[in-house]
Amino acid sequence: MLVVGVDLGGIEVKAGLVDSEKGIVKKYISKTEVSQGKEKVVKNICKAIEEVSKGYSFEAIGIGSPGSIDRDSGIIRFSPNFPEWNDFDLGKKISEVFNKKVYIENDANAFTLGEWYFDKAKGCQNFITLTLGTGVGSGVVSNGTFITGATGIGPELGHFPIVPDGRKCGCENNGCVESHCSSKSVANIAKEMICKYPESDILKLAGDIESIESLHVFKAAEKGDFLAKDIIERTTEVLARAIGGFIHVFNPELIVIGGGMSKAGDALFVPLRNKVLKYVMPSFRNTYKIEQSTLVENAGILGAASAAFFGMKGE
Amino acid sequence: MLVVGVDLGGIEVKAGLVDSEKGIVKKYISKTEVSQGKEKVVKNICKAIEEVSKGYSFEAIGIGSPGSIDRDSGIIRFSPNFPEWNDFDLGKKISEVFNKKVYIENDANAFTLGEWYFDKAKGCQNFITLTLGTGVGSGVVSNGTFITGATGIGPELGHFPIVPDGRKCGCENNGCVESHCSSKSVANIAKEMICKYPESDILKLAGDIESIESLHVFKAAEKGDFLAKDIIERTTEVLARAIGGFIHVFNPELIVIGGGMSKAGDALFVPLRNKVLKYVMPSFRNTYKIEQSTLVENAGILGAASAAFFGMKGE
Repeated sequence: MLVVGVDLGGIEVKAGLVDSEKGIVKKYISKTEVSQGKEKVVKNICKAIEEVSKGYSFEAIGIGSPGSIDRDSGIIRFSPNFPEWNDFDLGKKISEVFNKKVYIENDANAFTLGEWYFDKAKGCQNFITLTLGTGVGSGVVSNGTFITGATGIGPELGHFPIVPDGRKCGCENNGCVESHCSSKSVANIAKEMICKYPESDILKLAGDIESIESLHVFKAAEKGDFLAKDIIERTTEVLARAIGGFIHVFNPELIVIGGGMSKAGDALFVPLRNKVLKYVMPSFRNTYKIEQSTLVENAGILGAASAAFFGMKGE
Repeated sequence: MLVVGVDLGGIEVKAGLVDSEKGIVKKYISKTEVSQGKEKVVKNICKAIEEVSKGYSFEAIGIGSPGSIDRDSGIIRFSPNFPEWNDFDLGKKISEVFNKKVYIENDANAFTLGEWYFDKAKGCQNFITLTLGTGVGSGVVSNGTFITGATGIGPELGHFPIVPDGRKCGCENNGCVESHCSSKSVANIAKEMICKYPESDILKLAGDIESIESLHVFKAAEKGDFLAKDIIERTTEVLARAIGGFIHVFNPELIVIGGGMSKAGDALFVPLRNKVLKYVMPSFRNTYKIEQSTLVENAGILGAASAAFFGMKGE
């Protein structure tokens, strides 16, 4: 079965023609051009859908977007990428053009569905995803059910207040997983600490303070840099305690980690797996795996397409 | 529809004939007599089932028991109440006597099903239960699915490692919700602190140190006792942060709290509700309620019966 998956980012619209068995058949990327207004963005989305679907017949359109999405009505309630889009009826707009059903899902949930249909979680009935990016996105499938909650805004594992009186989070609370373990938080912590450790390799790798990213910290840690190792130690400690908790909460067989910071690979996953063990009680110890997502730059398109596959299944 | 629910405790076997609409029709309580061996306990269970079902025809038997239960095979893997029962095939034994299907569930999950069918959570598709007793039991229904996890041992919200380097827990870890917020932990904290505050009302209410229970601490706090207020403040703070986290995890419409410590009523629920608010981000703030279970001493029987109703539904 063919659908079109649209990864709606603040900079680029990535569209893909996706086969339910074979994955991405064709890809097209265009600029989003948010500054030129809603109508222009809708036009760009439609152009991208047309381009990838030219000469093919497809069943439906899936769209993945950051922010708060009303999946039933296809309305974008609020998205950080599109500050002027509050309550924008994107699903209906696109649906009218192509005369196809449109399924919109937030990017973290779309990622989870993409993992379920196309990556490590294929066939799993109990798994968790975490994306360590600007924020910490999450998704859960538990007892075969895709968890969305009473008002459709769950799960937000990234906003579990894991550290008492911890770092301020964008959500107004303190000590959220996101405010300690996102790639942005790790970069921010390094930026704050670097003045005390100006000789750190982190600064050498990044060039200047403002350019520091989480992957510079992981690279510097691998070289034995003191500050970098300390930051990674603290970050993985907090993340491990959170994941240990989520393992008790869901008894999942798999935790898939994606997002920018997951690209650190072993530098992240080796200490993380060791530390998680410490927080898991004996009966849960051999029940789960922690894996790196392999969808990488196709995660957005495959996630969006999977939102369509999942939506069609439920109807 | 009629079933028999059996609440299998270490001291008493409570059996009830339970109607799916009307609740408990008839009750019978006998001693468990664990010290007299498995066969005697099985005999006592059978006697209790016979007594409540005399003159009635019933569909199935539900049994609720503390410990690790294999619900598919009806085997008690391990139970703190029955140290010599490891891998005991209780379901089969009872089933053979009555020629009825037997559904066994651990007490925390049975409580959750009891809440779903007979109490505050009736009709809810997204709710959490926590029982604050000797331990902290938990159960979750999310998107209408009763969550049990990949190996059937979830959810264990009581073993979320909520406090970094916190109190030692029976599960071998530190800082679990259970090791800070169970009624036993609250009593233990009071016992540890009382030597520094021998004038505390807690001691007056309990009589002697060994007799201190969590409800003495709540009563003393209501009278303005300094130590008691401090213990309640810390306990509700930890519990509130955990519940705040679980609200982000599941986006539930309801959190039902039962178990011995829930009997403290407003002394627990008023500060708890206030503190939870602090840990919940704006979009989740008006999505949930925190309620006291009203099943009280019938929780065990109704939970066990509900395990049977739930089991039959799935077949």
